[in-house]
Amino acid sequence: MGTETAPPRRGRRRATDADARSAIVRAAASEFASAGYDGISLRAVARRAAVDPALVHHYFADKADLFAATIAVPIRPDRIVADILRGPREEIGTSIVRALVTRFEEPRTRDAVLTVVRTAMGHEFAGRMLRQFLVREVLQRITTELGQDDGERRAAFAASQIVGLVIARYGIRIGPLADASDDDVIATVGPVVQWYLTGTPPTDPTAS
Amino acid sequence: MGTETAPPRRGRRRATDADARSAIVRAAASEFASAGYDGISLRAVARRAAVDPALVHHYFADKADLFAATIAVPIRPDRIVADILRGPREEIGTSIVRALVTRFEEPRTRDAVLTVVRTAMGHEFAGRMLRQFLVREVLQRITTELGQDDGERRAAFAASQIVGLVIARYGIRIGPLADASDDDVIATVGPVVQWYLTGTPPTDPTAS
Repeated sequence: MGTETAPPRRGRRRATDADARSAIVRAAASEFASAGYDGISLRAVARRAAVDPALVHHYFADKADLFAATIAVPIRPDRIVADILRGPREEIGTSIVRALVTRFEEPRTRDAVLTVVRTAMGHEFAGRMLRQFLVREVLQRITTELGQDDGERRAAFAASQIVGLVIARYGIRIGPLADASDDDVIATVGPVVQWYLTGTPPTDPTAS
Repeated sequence: MGTETAPPRRGRRRATDADARSAIVRAAASEFASAGYDGISLRAVARRAAVDPALVHHYFADKADLFAATIAVPIRPDRIVADILRGPREEIGTSIVRALVTRFEEPRTRDAVLTVVRTAMGHEFAGRMLRQFLVREVLQRITTELGQDDGERRAAFAASQIVGLVIARYGIRIGPLADASDDDVIATVGPVVQWYLTGTPPTDPTAS
């Protein structure tokens, strides 16, 4: 991608390099989340970050590089798994859904995950990212810990509900699901994830 | 969007107008499915359809118009709902998932639905399309027929699992779910949809 303007002189930059870089990453996160991987230009990111486009090229080789920086949210799958496994085994599904909706209260995390999910629909690199993180690093580690023989299969079905929840509640925002409280979502979807992972049937959500 | 070439003369067109139009729609379906709404150009569609770009502009006002034609798959929600309701009430979830995976064997339907889901993540018009079709025209009609008070809420949660299944199995293709047989998917996910819609708990999938 060509750079049409010369790099800005020192004085035109923001206070520090770190500030400028993080302003670009924040702007990119919003742009990727709203316009999608294919819909954004590095120029639009620069505009939103209020920096010279050349600065974007200074920090990031290309769009894929910027994407990787953008979705590098401070989520540690090993810690999520450790937290979940510390709770009772019969509440693993609930703990997983709670870990998700709680982290989604942070807009940067929410934008990053939505961007990965959306991009994963058309770009294998993002699909791989999602499969590795959600399925392998989180769900399969849990099924392994639970000693499940068919853990890979169980993790895949649980992932379908988790990805669907992310999209329906935060992405396409289906009314009652977008408006539901975190507690309601945890209490309703948690038992389904539990059922996929352990085979323990949920109880009627209307009975509670 | 400007048209750079003059409309082709009659002799350069395909055999009939209907042929050309449907070649464009088929090409657009593949392009939308692989590159996404933001990633395609009408020029690329023309190239894939082997027609003059001007012909695309002749039939379709803009990308949104072409999109609407592309996703106009021959799915009749009223017939789907009638079919599902003809079966036993305790197998409604299974019937819904069966209706989905059976129709997804048809590549054009699969591409169209994947395109709507993907586009819905970033474009409100496609989000509305998905909510109207899946939630209102299919799931809420069923919960109304079942006499559920909280049908709208139940339909929303069921939709999250259905959208997640579509994405995980056909979109990002999570290994064991992408490789599973239709029967396996119907037997495993159907009871979850049933549970969301009616509150009847599933039985252990490994017990069958």
